[in-house]
Amino acid sequence: MKFFCNQKALMHSISIVQKAVSSKSTLPIIKGIYLEAYEDHLRLVGTDMEIGIDHVMEANIIEEGSIVVDARLFSEIIRRLPDYEVEVSLQENNQLLIKCAATEFNILSYNASEFPELPEIEEDQIHEISQDLFKNMIRQTVFATAQDETRPILTGVLMEIEDDILSMVALDGYRVALRKGKLNAHLNNRVVIPGKTLNEVNRIMTGEEDENIKISLTNNHALFTVGNTKLISRLLEGEFMNYNQIIPKEFKSRVKVNTRSLLDSIERASLLGKEGRNNLVKFSITDYKMVINSNSELGNVHEEILIELEGDDLQIAFNSKYFIDALKVIDDESVYLEFTTNLSPGIIKPITNDNTIYLVLPVRLSSY
Amino acid sequence: MKFFCNQKALMHSISIVQKAVSSKSTLPIIKGIYLEAYEDHLRLVGTDMEIGIDHVMEANIIEEGSIVVDARLFSEIIRRLPDYEVEVSLQENNQLLIKCAATEFNILSYNASEFPELPEIEEDQIHEISQDLFKNMIRQTVFATAQDETRPILTGVLMEIEDDILSMVALDGYRVALRKGKLNAHLNNRVVIPGKTLNEVNRIMTGEEDENIKISLTNNHALFTVGNTKLISRLLEGEFMNYNQIIPKEFKSRVKVNTRSLLDSIERASLLGKEGRNNLVKFSITDYKMVINSNSELGNVHEEILIELEGDDLQIAFNSKYFIDALKVIDDESVYLEFTTNLSPGIIKPITNDNTIYLVLPVRLSSY
Repeated sequence: MKFFCNQKALMHSISIVQKAVSSKSTLPIIKGIYLEAYEDHLRLVGTDMEIGIDHVMEANIIEEGSIVVDARLFSEIIRRLPDYEVEVSLQENNQLLIKCAATEFNILSYNASEFPELPEIEEDQIHEISQDLFKNMIRQTVFATAQDETRPILTGVLMEIEDDILSMVALDGYRVALRKGKLNAHLNNRVVIPGKTLNEVNRIMTGEEDENIKISLTNNHALFTVGNTKLISRLLEGEFMNYNQIIPKEFKSRVKVNTRSLLDSIERASLLGKEGRNNLVKFSITDYKMVINSNSELGNVHEEILIELEGDDLQIAFNSKYFIDALKVIDDESVYLEFTTNLSPGIIKPITNDNTIYLVLPVRLSSY
Repeated sequence: MKFFCNQKALMHSISIVQKAVSSKSTLPIIKGIYLEAYEDHLRLVGTDMEIGIDHVMEANIIEEGSIVVDARLFSEIIRRLPDYEVEVSLQENNQLLIKCAATEFNILSYNASEFPELPEIEEDQIHEISQDLFKNMIRQTVFATAQDETRPILTGVLMEIEDDILSMVALDGYRVALRKGKLNAHLNNRVVIPGKTLNEVNRIMTGEEDENIKISLTNNHALFTVGNTKLISRLLEGEFMNYNQIIPKEFKSRVKVNTRSLLDSIERASLLGKEGRNNLVKFSITDYKMVINSNSELGNVHEEILIELEGDDLQIAFNSKYFIDALKVIDDESVYLEFTTNLSPGIIKPITNDNTIYLVLPVRLSSY
């Protein structure tokens, strides 16, 4: 194997696939990047066996071939080289020679045949969605996945495709995030994608290529394609909760409030509860104002915000984190908060559209 | 105690003194900021018993007085407040009321009388030096202090004042950093300032005030004054090595080389040795070029740089870290490297002035 390519271009490609490489594996080959030189292309592949990223760049191929090289070392070497042409060639005894200007590295490489193959995904059923929209849908749902692994299915985001609507849903037992968006659908589908995968998908959507992201789904895998980059991930197995049953269809109190003011007030109110405990905040909602209270051994805080109230006065308490997480990803200037009683879930949604709904369970207090 | 002030101004003052506050102390009062309202001023003090920072800002004082408040909590509350006027007043039971717009916090405060007093420093002997120059002198020496505490004196930087020359010296047993600069001296002096102190002094030199930094020294303390901020630090006790004896006055080989090229090459050469071991790099110096080699179980690297050599050819080996540290803080485009034998110290210095000298001990190799 022997090829020439530009230092900056090679570094860019390495940084794309390196995200998928496991740094923790005990198998050296899994900590590697697979390099394949063919025709005028260099293919780079990294995988941690859960996610695989495959990227193709242009290169001047002198001799075709493939090897695997330690990802961290290769990346650090290429990053430090000057911005000139880089020559990479396989020597005797699996030594990889890297030359650039007055620098020569010889490092050990591994046999490509030992590198795990990524699963083949049939690309005959391709959904398409704009990168910007999909980035937003990920950002507005993935934070609500469960962080612990006691119920693995909850660490993922449900992707439900019905006609031309994609619904993405995350829930962790205390809250639900639901975001709908239009896509160019092929077939109806219902799969659960690991949250970690979606964070990586976010990274490969660089917005450099002015094109949609393509999504292909099988029973076990999802394939995301952006330009010359493919990301393949396993799906999560198990039954995802029927979220539609949980979301209330009616309300007795509806508050209209400025998103930023509410977020700032709740963030301040949560300062006193930081040390490990539930960050409890109490809302006292009356005709034109909402009072937010919080107290702990450190002190107490009292916040007032102007609101528009439709329906009944209400006193209700929440874990501030769940409100903060949701309010942070809402781009609208104002939100509706919808409540029925102080024992039933609260709803947060932007006032301009029905695409986004956050549900938060209240904290039951003995007194208000 | 009761005062009004602007939120941003208060936050700025807190951020200056908070640097000195210990977050690890078991005594709550040491984790606090001392606030004193008097005349039209608010004084803030933070200390970890090694370093104390005292800062005075303007405020509208309604009632004079002083209290101590938890630094982290107070800082987080003030940071989160809107950019309006803040009212701070002491209530019954040591409760501190903080009001701003529609927000009210009540937090616990401590009795000011329990706060440790900073030592009184006579300011009758004041040295003055430009902030820019002193910042550079700190940056160009403090990295060479010892990081472990086995010989505490080596964790400090010697400040030696003779006539109008300040010499700052750091050494850790493997290398020496020496930087001289002009100052407005009062008396000759020789003290050792903890490296940590100088890093904090660097931070209070914001360059906002277009004035010199003032330095007063006693037998046990140093006082640094910039504008309305005073930093007081203990000195390190013990005998500092006589650095003049170690620095060679002659050389047999002198290399002139581009600083950036040499730094880049040594940084690349050090990539292969990262895992814990001594990052050994070998220099082979001949008439017009210098070859840098390094090898480990990961592979080997060969670098060539163009140089101008005066004197003998030489082969010599160093721990790359010590060269990298020194080359990083040299602002000159080119440096001289001066050597006598491959068992004696190497010197690095900028070619345009004699103010700065770095000395590095070589690594003795059985073969080259």
